[in-house]
Order: sequence, then C-alpha cells, then structure tokens
Amino acid sequence: MDCSQLTNTAKVSVGYKKDGAVQNQKDISVEEKERLVILTNEQPWKPWQRSRFWVKECLVKVRCVMGSLMEMEWYCFAALGVLTAFLSFLMDLSVEKLLRAHQWLFSQLEGHSLLQFLSWTLYPVSLCTLSTTFSQSVSPFSAGSGVPEVRTMLSGVDMPHYLSLTNLFAKYVGLICTLAAGRTVFLGKVGPFVHLSTMVGGYLNRLCTVLRGEREVKPSMLVVAAAVGVASCFGAPVSGVLFSVEVMCSHFALRDYCPCFFAAACGALTFRMLSVWSSDQETLQALFQTNFSDDLPFYPVEILVFTILGILCGACSCVYLFCHRWILQFIKTNKILVKMLSTELSPNSSMVLIVLTMKQLLSSLLENRQWTSTAKNASAVLQPQLCPWSEWCPSGNPCLTLGFFLVMKLWMLVLACTLPLPAGYFMPVFIYGAALGRLVGEALAYVSLNGIYSDQDKNQINPGGYALAGAAAFSGAVTHTLSPALLALELTGQSTHATPILLATLVANALARSGQRPSFYDALSISKKLPHLPSLLLVLLIFFVATIIFQLYTQIYVNISLEHILSLSDLQTFLFHNHNMILKKQLGDICPIQPVSVQISPDTTVQEAHRVLSVLCGQSLFVTEKGRLCGVVTWPEMKRMMEDLTNDL
Amino acid sequence: MDCSQLTNTAKVSVGYKKDGAVQNQKDISVEEKERLVILTNEQPWKPWQRSRFWVKECLVKVRCVMGSLMEMEWYCFAALGVLTAFLSFLMDLSVEKLLRAHQWLFSQLEGHSLLQFLSWTLYPVSLCTLSTTFSQSVSPFSAGSGVPEVRTMLSGVDMPHYLSLTNLFAKYVGLICTLAAGRTVFLGKVGPFVHLSTMVGGYLNRLCTVLRGEREVKPSMLVVAAAVGVASCFGAPVSGVLFSVEVMCSHFALRDYCPCFFAAACGALTFRMLSVWSSDQETLQALFQTNFSDDLPFYPVEILVFTILGILCGACSCVYLFCHRWILQFIKTNKILVKMLSTELSPNSSMVLIVLTMKQLLSSLLENRQWTSTAKNASAVLQPQLCPWSEWCPSGNPCLTLGFFLVMKLWMLVLACTLPLPAGYFMPVFIYGAALGRLVGEALAYVSLNGIYSDQDKNQINPGGYALAGAAAFSGAVTHTLSPALLALELTGQSTHATPILLATLVANALARSGQRPSFYDALSISKKLPHLPSLLLVLLIFFVATIIFQLYTQIYVNISLEHILSLSDLQTFLFHNHNMILKKQLGDICPIQPVSVQISPDTTVQEAHRVLSVLCGQSLFVTEKGRLCGVVTWPEMKRMMEDLTNDL
Repeated sequence: MDCSQLTNTAKVSVGYKKDGAVQNQKDISVEEKERLVILTNEQPWKPWQRSRFWVKECLVKVRCVMGSLMEMEWYCFAALGVLTAFLSFLMDLSVEKLLRAHQWLFSQLEGHSLLQFLSWTLYPVSLCTLSTTFSQSVSPFSAGSGVPEVRTMLSGVDMPHYLSLTNLFAKYVGLICTLAAGRTVFLGKVGPFVHLSTMVGGYLNRLCTVLRGEREVKPSMLVVAAAVGVASCFGAPVSGVLFSVEVMCSHFALRDYCPCFFAAACGALTFRMLSVWSSDQETLQALFQTNFSDDLPFYPVEILVFTILGILCGACSCVYLFCHRWILQFIKTNKILVKMLSTELSPNSSMVLIVLTMKQLLSSLLENRQWTSTAKNASAVLQPQLCPWSEWCPSGNPCLTLGFFLVMKLWMLVLACTLPLPAGYFMPVFIYGAALGRLVGEALAYVSLNGIYSDQDKNQINPGGYALAGAAAFSGAVTHTLSPALLALELTGQSTHATPILLATLVANALARSGQRPSFYDALSISKKLPHLPSLLLVLLIFFVATIIFQLYTQIYVNISLEHILSLSDLQTFLFHNHNMILKKQLGDICPIQPVSVQISPDTTVQEAHRVLSVLCGQSLFVTEKGRLCGVVTWPEMKRMMEDLTNDL
Repeated sequence: MDCSQLTNTAKVSVGYKKDGAVQNQKDISVEEKERLVILTNEQPWKPWQRSRFWVKECLVKVRCVMGSLMEMEWYCFAALGVLTAFLSFLMDLSVEKLLRAHQWLFSQLEGHSLLQFLSWTLYPVSLCTLSTTFSQSVSPFSAGSGVPEVRTMLSGVDMPHYLSLTNLFAKYVGLICTLAAGRTVFLGKVGPFVHLSTMVGGYLNRLCTVLRGEREVKPSMLVVAAAVGVASCFGAPVSGVLFSVEVMCSHFALRDYCPCFFAAACGALTFRMLSVWSSDQETLQALFQTNFSDDLPFYPVEILVFTILGILCGACSCVYLFCHRWILQFIKTNKILVKMLSTELSPNSSMVLIVLTMKQLLSSLLENRQWTSTAKNASAVLQPQLCPWSEWCPSGNPCLTLGFFLVMKLWMLVLACTLPLPAGYFMPVFIYGAALGRLVGEALAYVSLNGIYSDQDKNQINPGGYALAGAAAFSGAVTHTLSPALLALELTGQSTHATPILLATLVANALARSGQRPSFYDALSISKKLPHLPSLLLVLLIFFVATIIFQLYTQIYVNISLEHILSLSDLQTFLFHNHNMILKKQLGDICPIQPVSVQISPDTTVQEAHRVLSVLCGQSLFVTEKGRLCGVVTWPEMKRMMEDLTNDL
C-alpha cells in the first residue's frame, strides 16, 4: 500500500503538528485556520473539528508505519486469530462459571433429595431452553453446528445471513448456554466455533477492504477463518490448517496457505497464553496433556490391532451415519415431531441423567493406567473427585461399563443432532470413538495380562493409545476427514502413537467413504438444502451447464460507438439522464470494462464450471456457443441453480 | 473397475479350472482344445500356451478380487509408499556399510599417519568423483537435488527425461556414493529422494494406467509421490503431505489429499518397520528421538526469544540466498570454473577435512544437556564415542565453537550447491539452522545461569528446543516453506515446542519472502531455465496469452459432412488412403470428438490460463477472439512459451 496516497488527505495536518511544537498550543495559525475552514466546509455540522482532525492524523500515521512493516491484511489475519482465541477463552470461562454455579446449587441443597434432583435436572433443561429460544428468536441461522454452512460458503457461494452480527451474537450466547447444559446433553464446541470464527473473519475482511481502499471483498479471509476456528478452539494450529484444506470445495489455493498458518499460530498462541495467564498452568501445554511412555509406547504387532480398530470404527461410523440420515429424514416427514423438538424440548429432560462433562470424560478415557489393574486394586477409584455423580466410573468391569456407555450414547448422539440449538457434534463423536478405542484397548490389556504376555509385567499394553486412535478414527470416519488424526496428536501433545493413529484413521475413512455414502456434514447439507456441490453430487448425476437457465445478454465490444448502444433498450433507460454530455465518447471511456478472459460452452459440466469459477477468484464465466454469447454463469446463478436442484430432493 | 469386463477375455478359462478339478489333469477336454486353438490362432508363435494361459487366468482372478476390495490405483499408491521406503532403507544400509568400511580402513592403518591422512581424504574424494562421473555419464539429468524439477513437473509441465529408468538408476547409485562421501562434503538425502520417489511414481502410474485399460496418464500420482518422498525418507507422513501441498503450483486438488496421506502413511510405516526388523529398535520410533522435559519445556517469556531467533534465521537465510544466487550467476558467467567444477572436482579436496556425519551432528545439536554445564564439569565430554575425529566437539567454549562452525559452513554450503552430483541441500541447511538455534540457546542458557534465573537450578533453559526451532526456521526461510516446522516435530517425536517452532518458522518466512526475492529452489529453477511459472514470475512481469505464438486451427463442427472436410488440405492427406470406405459417414462416427468446454481470450494472463489448464486436468484450452478460433494452448505450448521466456533471462 502506498503511503503517499494515504496521506494525501491529511498531508497538511502533518505539517501542522510540526509548526505546533514551536508555537503556543492556543494560538491558531493562519494555515491551520484555512485547513479548519476546508474541514468545516466539508462537514460543517460535526463538532470537535480540531480533535477529530488530530485523531485522524494520528490514525493515518499509524497506518503508514504499519503498512511499511507488512501489508494491511496480515494485521487482519493476526487480529482474527487473537480475537477468536479471546472469544474461545471467554466462552470456556463463562461455561466454567455456569457449571460451578450448578455444582454450588446442588451442594447447597444437601439433605433435600427431591430439591437436589429437581435442581440437577431443571438447570440444564432451562439452559437448553434459553439457548434454543434465544438463538431462534434472534437469528434462526445460528442453530446447528455451522460447519455445513461454512463449507458451502468456502466453496464460493455467498450467504450473507450466516455472517451477520446478530447471528454472531445469537450463536455465541446460545453456545455458552448449550455448553453449560450441553455437557449433560453431550454436545461440543468445535463446529459452532468454526462458524463463529468465520463470522469474525467476514467482519475483518470488510474492515480490511475498507482500509485498503478496495471495493471487492477477497474470499481468502473465510478460508483462513476456518483454520483459526479449530486452532483457537483447541490450541492446535496444524490440524486447523488441515481442516481448512479439507473443507475447501475442490482446490485449495496455495496463496491462502501462509495466511492460514499465520492466523492459526496467532490463535493457538493467544489461546494458550490466556490459559497460562489465568494461572491454570506454568507454561504452554496441550489441552489434554497425556503422559504415555516414550520408551515402548506399543509393540510393532499392535499395528495390526490398530488396523482392526480402524475397521471397527469405520463400521460403527456407517451405523451411526445411517441412523443420523434416518432421523434427519424422519424429522422432515414427521410434522408433529418437528414442532415438539423445536418448541417443547422434550428430549432434553430424558437426557439429563447422564452428567459427565466432556473434558473429564476425555481425560479419564485417555488415562494411562489400565482400568482392569486399578479395578483389581479395588481401593483405587479413578479420579473420584472429578466425576462425583457418574454411575459409569470404572469401579466394576470396565468392558461392561464401556459397552453400556456405547449403546446408550449412540441413540443420544443421534437424537442430539435434532436439537435446534447452537451446538457442535464433533467432540461427542470424538469421545464416542475414544470409548470404542478404550474398549478394544482394555480388552486387549485384559487378554495380554491373563494370557500370552503375562510375564512382561513391565511393559503393559497402554489402552490410552487405543482410545486416542479410536477417537481419531471414528470422528474422521463420521466426518470423512483426516485432520482428526493430527488433532488427536495436538490435543494430547504426544506423537508416540502418530503412525498407528494415522493408519486407523485412514482405514476407517476408507470404509466410511466406500460406496459414495454422504458424510455427517454432507447429510446435513442435503437435509438443509445448502448449495454445496460435492454433497449434491452424492445424490445427483453429472449435469451440464446447458441445464442452467441462460440469461441472454447482448454482446458489446469495447470500441463500440455510443449510438449503437443507445439503440439497445436496456442501456437506453440507464443512460437516459446524461446522454447529452457523453455522446461523443466511446463506451470504454465511461465505464471500466474488463476483457472477457474465459468462456465456457453449454457442454461444460457444472463441476468444471464451478472449478474454473473458483480458481478465477469470483469472475463471471461467459457461456458461448459457436462464437455467440448465450449466457453468463456467476456465483449467484451457480447458487440459484444448486438451490433449484436441492428443491427436487 | 468392473470385473465382468475384465473377465470377458478369460471367462472360459475360469470354467476350465472348475472342470479340471473333476477330470484328470493330463486329459485335455474339447473345450480347452478349442480355447487353445483360439489362443494359438492369436499368437501361434509363442511357446507354453497352456502355462501362459493358466498364469493369465490366475492374474485376472487376483485382479478381480483386488478390484472388488478397492480401486486399482490405491494398490499403486500403497506400492509407491512401500517401494520408496524400501529404496530409502536400502540406501541408508549401503551408506552405513560404506562409512564403516572407511572407518575400518582408517583404523587398520593405525601408526602410519601419512597413509591414514591419505585414506581419510582420498576415500570421500574418490566416492564423489565416482558419483559425478557415473551420474553424468549415465544420465546428466540426475545431478542436483531434483526438487526444482519435481516442482516444475507438478505444475503440469511434462519432462520425460527426468522420469526415465536410467535417471532413476543413475540418481540412486550416485546418491549412495554422495551420501557415503557427502557427510564429509555436508550434503543430504531429502531432495534427491523426492525426485527418486517421483520417478517410481511415474512408473507405477504407467503400470496403473495399463492395468485399468485407460489411455490417459493421470497426474495425481506425481503429487502423491512428492509426499511419499519426504515421508519415507524420514518416516514423517504429515510433513510429507504438507510438502506436497507446498510444492504444487497454485492450487492443491483435494482429490489428491487422501491418496497423499495413504501413500505417505504406507511409506512411513514401512520405513519404520524396516528399522525395527533390522533390530535397531524395539518399537517404531522417530528418527532423531529426543527426550525434552514435558513438565516445563520452556517459560512463556521464552516465546519472545524464539521470535528473535526467527528474525535471526530469516536474516541469515537472506545472506545465504544472496550468496547462493551470486555463485549461481558467477558459475554461469565464468567458463573456466564451470569446466573445473564439472570435471576436476577440485573443491571436494578442500572440503574433506570436516568429518562430521550428519546424523551425529544433528543428534549432538539437539542434545538436551547444556554444553556450558557439561563443559563446567570438565570431565564429561559429550558423546565422545560418536564423533571421534571431530575438532569442534564441545570441549571448549560452545559459543566460540558454534560460531566457527557457522562461519566455516556458510561458504561450504554455498560451494556444495555447485557440485554436479546427485545430492540434497535441505538437510545441510536444516543442520545449519540447528547450529544457529543452538548458539542462541547456549547463549541464553549461559546468561540465565550466571544472571537472572540463577536460583532456579531445577528448570534450566533447554538449548535443544532452540536448535530445533532454528533448524525449522532457517530451512523454512531458505526454501520458502512451512513444512519444516512440522518435520522438526515429526523427526524428534516430541511436540512440546510445537508453538514456538511454528512461530519462529513463520517469522523467518515472513522476512525471507519480503521483497519478492526468489527462494533456494526458485533460484535453481531460474538458473536451470526450468519452465516453472511461479519462479519465472519473480523475474518477469505479467504477460498475456496473446504473447504465445498462435497456431491457427481450422474450426470443425461435430456434424460437418466429410466432403467439406476433404477440401481442407491437412485432413486430405491424412484421410487419403481410406476415403472411399468412409465417405458416407460423419466425422463424429469416425473419430472420438470431445466438446470444446472452456475457451480463453487473447487478453487472458498466462497465470490464469495456467490455473485453468491445471484444474481441468490436462485438457487443451481454445483461444477465441470475437467468436473465432485463433489458437490453442496445451501443456507443450505452455512449456515452450516458458522456455522461450527463460532463454531471454
């Protein structure tokens, strides 16, 4: 950005400051008077002319200094990371307070069993109701996870409702309520946070555009925001960037690669530094720091068990996704249920009795010790202070407990997706996978203790590693992504199990993706009728550009004379008011004309058109047939066409 | 892939096997005779008709079973990973043997100082000479790192010489010789290995194309191969994939994302399993496993020092890149030097006296203990059995030793890049950065011990973390990439320093990329005149498609009659021999005609054309002006045009 351009408006004012140092402050010089007169002539009704002038001048100077260091958009990327991390930290803090209030209320009512039960059940229900009613009344677009919408926006479709300020507010407040109650109803934070960071990104993008004096809004900020969302939610920058790569439509632009990493690193650093400053930790640490043994994390033979775990997770994800698709379809067809779910929140009350918070759950699942061995000690109950009311704490047979947990949680997970409140579904799925992995790990540890490896007491099998691999594999299979594998490593801060985790995730993904079944987000996209091409292609055949309704345009060349243009009816009305003064000029002198660079034919498939449109950064595509212009494809047309198609579903 | 299509040719033979189980083996049934007659009629001169038939039948069956599990190309991806990892392991083994032979020779000559000196200097020189002469005589394309060439190929340009079998052979043998001597001349393995894996990928791609019965070769295998190269060189799958994303031209296609991860995971797993099986380790471990403290890896204040380290690394990379560009330019202009370097290998002999091997060097640089404290003990010399002949082992002042190392290595690094042998430059740069970081870390540890933090004896500052951050930041800045940050984590198997390493790498990259200076690979691309668009754009202005020489084509429509075509002179000669039999048919009946989907105008910039061409997977782009075809842009044209432009440099 050129500083000389920026200072043009305030050039005189910089001069004023130099003079002002010599003269008395109260004595207004002639030059300054002139300047004030100019300012007053421009905006004579506004007060505090001098103060405003001074502030403006300072701002311009700051902008010049900043612009000379690096380009303006990099500050916006940094701000995006810092702001989102701050929002994330603030949300965690609020949720913590609300949860403590609940526990305090419960403990105060000791002795009154009925009141205790009521406080225990009504508190989350009221919070959920608040979340639903608030978000629905302020902005109905804030419901759900938001990832399908973000994917759609990243694939190039403009959806302004989902990026509005009211939506940001509704989603933020609603999500705090959901999380405070949602640990009861087993809901997460990631998805909505990606959406929130996209909204922040959208705002900063507009700010950045204004600061740079440009007109067009660049789409790269949204891509960066998707990376920042994951990064500042967990302090995991690399998996954030990989998530952003994965949710992009078909081609990830490399010009977004460095901004993504930069903003994600800013977000992760701020999030972790805030944790340090709030005196939780002594230094920057991973969110769920584990302490697996470095010496022998697993035997090479266990690679096979990890592969089997991947297959198991893939199969379970297929069952889960089938149930999810079924319930989405069921809700759409059953009108009574829709009303009941959106207004009365009845399922909530039935879910209230499971009272584990997620962090505690995850921490106990990734626990290094085997539950079988702790259960054998019989005196040691695993972290009793952390899960005081939990009925499934591993005091009995861990496999039975886990089995019960898995069966119960499956239908709860499916049902939770139907709630019309801002909530994430990634973390529940992640924990479900961790439970699956833990089950396999515990079973293997039990077998190895009583069976083959019983002599090697020193290097027991670590079920925590299986829980981690299961979490990554199951969540990866459900969402059809690979970034959970890296997220699992970044969350625990240990990379001893990197290879088996990646392997399990790949195997589970292969199973889940076979047969062109839609992923969790795809199913939501299809159900919500979002114009997202890759999801649509799972249920539709390939179609051609010719199927889009053509709007017939008149061809205009740059060197065409104005007389010719005036004969055209559309332009005639447009140019009616001032045609006298510009009759002698050519069209190119009046309006800025960009050359038509890329044309497509009606035989082009919509995928190809979509791809070309996305790499050309939002230009319009002209459809020509045998040299004649027969239409135009722009993003609004693309969106409309996809919406038309989804209506037929 | 449809099995029924595959078995069409061998359908009868499967039936034969079923019958054959009932009948006697020697008794040939009538049906089989018929089949043999058919086969004999087809290829009557070939021997062993029955055996060949049986083998063919088995192969078809295996193919059917494999094809029903997953698509054929996934086997190719897995094979690519396994093969490359095997090559990598074999290379490490050979280099190890050659190095041991050198040490054995040296120890056998004990007592004869002159002979020892000669054996110590002549052994690497002869190996380097062998590497140079062998690779130059077999295939001159095998010299250098290969990464600039791989980048060019990945951006869509076809360069068959660089993917030939002779090149693979020459590069592999040459690289073994270089590495066996190159630890002396301070050269690495990564770059050539990426090139090697691309060659393997090219072969498997052609095999896969044959197996699937297709004609067109898909470009995705090369993208995957780039990821596999890094992954199987270090057993680091995630940084391999990020490297592949970074070296892609401008848009990373998401359809390559899963194959990249799959092949990289296969490669990394095989590489690590081979290490385990060769009884080096008990289980799968990182290549340079470290043991940094998990409790307090660094103080939050140290983030600032890491940022400063990033700035330092960025500044040093600018100096190094300037020297590198200068020497490339100097060699091009100084004819005598070119000859001397390519034939006499004189610089080698001058470099021989520094005798540290890379792994030992890196291990000692990432050492957890502070050298200052070990030096204070005075009795403990750091790992004396590992670097027996090293003169810079930390027995004196480590800062002075490191300073000497840094100054000496800088010109050696620059000079090493001019050697015409297959060698990598990434690892030397990585180690140079580690030394830089170690210097900063040691200085800080020294200051903190004697200064502010002297009371906190328990949690000393860990210079190993600085070495790791310096390595990632410097190598990232030199190559203008971010994947070294992740590579540093995967190489050491520890993620305690993830955030500071990423931060330092980002800061160093920002400094190195400012001012549109070319990176290490860009400078090589420009110097070698490779048709790589992003490198070219650093030294050229934006130019338009109109500057490409247009080849004028005649427009032909699908439904045109043959009489009209015959009047065209080009087609007339082509159809001369058989025009009598096809006169009544239309053109569409004879040749396969694809509809023209995307057209560009002469005003399109070459970047845009390049981008559109790459997302359309190798189609040709028709250049039209006012509805008239005036040319065609395909990859050969694009390549020729870029080569023309590089000739003007």
